[in-house]
Amino acid sequence: MHMTAYYAGASAPSFAVDSRLEAYAATTEFDRPTLVIDVDRVETQFEALRAGLGRADIHYAVKANPHPAIIERLVALGSHFDAASRAEIELCLSQGARPEHVSFGNTIKRVSDIAFAHHAGIRMFAVDAEEELEKIAEHAPGAQVYVRLIVETSTADWPLTRKFGCDRDTALKLLDRAIELGLEPLGFSFHVGSQTRHAEMWAPVLDELSTIWAAAREAGHDLELLNIGGGFPAFYGEEIQAPTDYAAAVMALVEDRFPGARRIMAEPGRGMVAEAGVIACEVMLTSRKSERDMHRWVYLSIGRFSGLAETEGEAIRYQFVTPHDGETTGPCILAGPSCDSADVLYEKRPMNLPLSLKSGDRVLIRNTGAYTSTYSSVCFNGFPPLDVVVI
Amino acid sequence: MHMTAYYAGASAPSFAVDSRLEAYAATTEFDRPTLVIDVDRVETQFEALRAGLGRADIHYAVKANPHPAIIERLVALGSHFDAASRAEIELCLSQGARPEHVSFGNTIKRVSDIAFAHHAGIRMFAVDAEEELEKIAEHAPGAQVYVRLIVETSTADWPLTRKFGCDRDTALKLLDRAIELGLEPLGFSFHVGSQTRHAEMWAPVLDELSTIWAAAREAGHDLELLNIGGGFPAFYGEEIQAPTDYAAAVMALVEDRFPGARRIMAEPGRGMVAEAGVIACEVMLTSRKSERDMHRWVYLSIGRFSGLAETEGEAIRYQFVTPHDGETTGPCILAGPSCDSADVLYEKRPMNLPLSLKSGDRVLIRNTGAYTSTYSSVCFNGFPPLDVVVI
Repeated sequence: MHMTAYYAGASAPSFAVDSRLEAYAATTEFDRPTLVIDVDRVETQFEALRAGLGRADIHYAVKANPHPAIIERLVALGSHFDAASRAEIELCLSQGARPEHVSFGNTIKRVSDIAFAHHAGIRMFAVDAEEELEKIAEHAPGAQVYVRLIVETSTADWPLTRKFGCDRDTALKLLDRAIELGLEPLGFSFHVGSQTRHAEMWAPVLDELSTIWAAAREAGHDLELLNIGGGFPAFYGEEIQAPTDYAAAVMALVEDRFPGARRIMAEPGRGMVAEAGVIACEVMLTSRKSERDMHRWVYLSIGRFSGLAETEGEAIRYQFVTPHDGETTGPCILAGPSCDSADVLYEKRPMNLPLSLKSGDRVLIRNTGAYTSTYSSVCFNGFPPLDVVVI
Repeated sequence: MHMTAYYAGASAPSFAVDSRLEAYAATTEFDRPTLVIDVDRVETQFEALRAGLGRADIHYAVKANPHPAIIERLVALGSHFDAASRAEIELCLSQGARPEHVSFGNTIKRVSDIAFAHHAGIRMFAVDAEEELEKIAEHAPGAQVYVRLIVETSTADWPLTRKFGCDRDTALKLLDRAIELGLEPLGFSFHVGSQTRHAEMWAPVLDELSTIWAAAREAGHDLELLNIGGGFPAFYGEEIQAPTDYAAAVMALVEDRFPGARRIMAEPGRGMVAEAGVIACEVMLTSRKSERDMHRWVYLSIGRFSGLAETEGEAIRYQFVTPHDGETTGPCILAGPSCDSADVLYEKRPMNLPLSLKSGDRVLIRNTGAYTSTYSSVCFNGFPPLDVVVI
């Protein structure tokens, strides 16, 4: 769908928008930078992923966007949930999720959160360390656990660090230790890496992990669960595989490699909600530092500390829509509005934007439904957090 | 002052704390990570800086910590303020600051914020671009402006990027343009770089800027104001000069180089409040990823997205106090509690902490009064923002 939207600003420039969502974001008056979410697009994406994931249970990674309207819709569609904290568990339950459909996927849990989850009826907990097993055994006796494995072979756009997971030998010990502590070890989880754009990029990771799966079975553990985590991509300008094809191809790779895996879980977050959101913001200032400067600077009303945290290291490269699209463009350094010199979005790889862009122009930032609103700071520089509107 | 404080936890370990502030933070029960601020220490630091700064007006950089109790105390002491946004201006005025004592120091201002400031009686605005001058001329006609210069020669621990400021030729044009637009150009501002630990590190920067000052005077501008910005250091483990000596030495360097500067402004932020705050948090988990790992991982209840944003790139290296200090230590990778793999505080240069540290132990983080609470995310992973308590 392509349409032209007219924004009721001073000069009423026109936007070439591609959806109802963008038309709304282009034409509505907002007092400050605002994330607009179309919950119907979350539903479309959920159905597309479910069609490909087949027998796998979808546990939506709540941290990607915990807006109650998203959770409510996903509950209605039969989604399960992956929660990172007590607050996320409470949110899911308050929107009608059943506790047995909520897993506590953070490997670093507060003791009081574990106890809360246990009393609320949450059964499944992630672990990657003995101390965490001991915390769970004490505060959620008899719970089910899955052991998170480190992935060494990721080819994702944004491979994760070694912060989460443990290696094969440690994992096997944790399975034994879980039984000693009266817990029920179900299987393994892992994360292939954020923004894994094509299904075939999963193959080397699944190969690596299948040897650990086999080793655990040889050691006598009748594992039933493989949690394949997230990594489902969103479109940020580089081509990605369509969600149903992608999910089906990943599942085909999984089915070949993990004999006996009676349950598969998947935890899409970004891949579920990113494309359901667009941020409306504005240009605050354009300038050159010097006559000799090759590049203009363009300062937006949103920056790294008010919702665009994932531009750190220029990792996620968003797509921008302006009322001057189609006019002559030139490279610019894009920065946020705060007095923090680190609040620069794109400098190493400048962004091409229309040369006519100026202070007051509205700008839309595409596919920003994931990992934006929650990263926003409470009040850095006195700026309020990113506002969120659901249509 | 050295004392021992007993924390009423399960094992009641003892802390060697060095102040009333730390004793409070070590022994009080908190529900979540909490920044404790001692406003008397802000006062002590203000007086120490004022003693050295002499005739310079101190404009506290509100963004460093906008807690109302800090602003209220500084108003009572006669401080002026540097505000980054409408909300910071409103805060200062609500605590009794006079509008003529508040400067609007962000070079990237919302048009509506400029108009608000003008109507509230704010006179001084920072600029580094022609478009900003035009915004100010339209929405704050007749205002005083100072032009922010780029510093090319910083030797600070954390030099700023080129995000702010303009070069000599642009600055001279902006002075002329300001007059054309009916504004009153007062002089120049700059930022020497955050955490400039010794006064002599200012000399090459002041040398560079004094030539631009002279060029402006030669061009017929009778400049009256030099705003020396921030850069005043806090103690993060590397030796710094004492505040009065430091400020006096900086002023001596300034007085030699800027003839005709009838007004000097200084904008300490970090250097005013960092040492007045300590964060109390706890260990969530300790682990090894593998038997072969050299380093333990220690996960705290606070991380990069809940108040410790300045550990990005391991730039600011905080000091930690634990109940096991004095016992055998070993290197550890320190990480935050969120499910974000980027939420790692120190990994390239691991932190030495007691080997006996374990889940549930309280940890104090020293000199965290600046640039912590406001960077905290609204609810990333469902974690509430950093709590703040004033004693």
